[in-house]
Amino acid sequence: MAQITRLPGDDDKETAMSESAQDRPLLTEIDHIAIAVPDLDEGIAYYRETFGATVDHREIVERDGVEEALLKVAESYVQLLTPTRDDSTVAKWLANRGGPGIHHVGYRVDDCAAALDAVKRQGFRVLDEQPRPGSRGTTVAFIHPKDALGTLIELVQE
Amino acid sequence: MAQITRLPGDDDKETAMSESAQDRPLLTEIDHIAIAVPDLDEGIAYYRETFGATVDHREIVERDGVEEALLKVAESYVQLLTPTRDDSTVAKWLANRGGPGIHHVGYRVDDCAAALDAVKRQGFRVLDEQPRPGSRGTTVAFIHPKDALGTLIELVQE
Repeated sequence: MAQITRLPGDDDKETAMSESAQDRPLLTEIDHIAIAVPDLDEGIAYYRETFGATVDHREIVERDGVEEALLKVAESYVQLLTPTRDDSTVAKWLANRGGPGIHHVGYRVDDCAAALDAVKRQGFRVLDEQPRPGSRGTTVAFIHPKDALGTLIELVQE
Repeated sequence: MAQITRLPGDDDKETAMSESAQDRPLLTEIDHIAIAVPDLDEGIAYYRETFGATVDHREIVERDGVEEALLKVAESYVQLLTPTRDDSTVAKWLANRGGPGIHHVGYRVDDCAAALDAVKRQGFRVLDEQPRPGSRGTTVAFIHPKDALGTLIELVQE
């Protein structure tokens, strides 16, 4: 965790804490839990047949080399994602893991740029230096799992 | 008027679909995303300092050999969990993984026993044959990740 030494300006820190940590927590919803699968239709069938969950949105995200299916659960989604090409990071992840599993978690935020800045201010590494387009018209940024309790976190602004 | 040919059994099929998949999907909320950590206080500090998320509930679950902290995000939780003894499955999971990470996902259901039966009816293995007490007064059951897209799923009834 980043060591931040503050001499003058400790008051600012306290003000920032009361604004961000108390009055305005940055995470407004678990946007999605992402499960990487080798076969999207099989993944969809599992959730439909077992839990009666149905596809709300399906999209190929060329940039990331994935196709995803979103199953709506209350205000959140179960996101099933599968690689569309061999050099996709999800293809490598599946090969490395040897099968499907939980790939990342998406946290919904009001302002992706502000949330990303909050992560950087803590001295934590990010995978996207700037917010970028995600699926279903969202704005997203990934932060580095090594600095985030081993968790690949996607910040999602609707 | 259109001629609609119906084979015997179509009624049954339609009724079953409308009850389970359409009108009453079993998953009502992503109850929690569980992140296993070697040090609970460090995990809590990460979420507080980075995202302003605070602990809503903290509990030692002796049966599972874990202590957990629940950070509320809308109607869901980020659940940080850490082992309280060396023979806890979470202790083994952390040792095997070599660090913290996403351990499981909890899906909220209206009726844990009914949801567990739905899983068994599909022929899928479960870790709990019967619902049992979870943290914060819930009733829970875990289903086997090998039959669930490599995902350790906890069914949670409030």
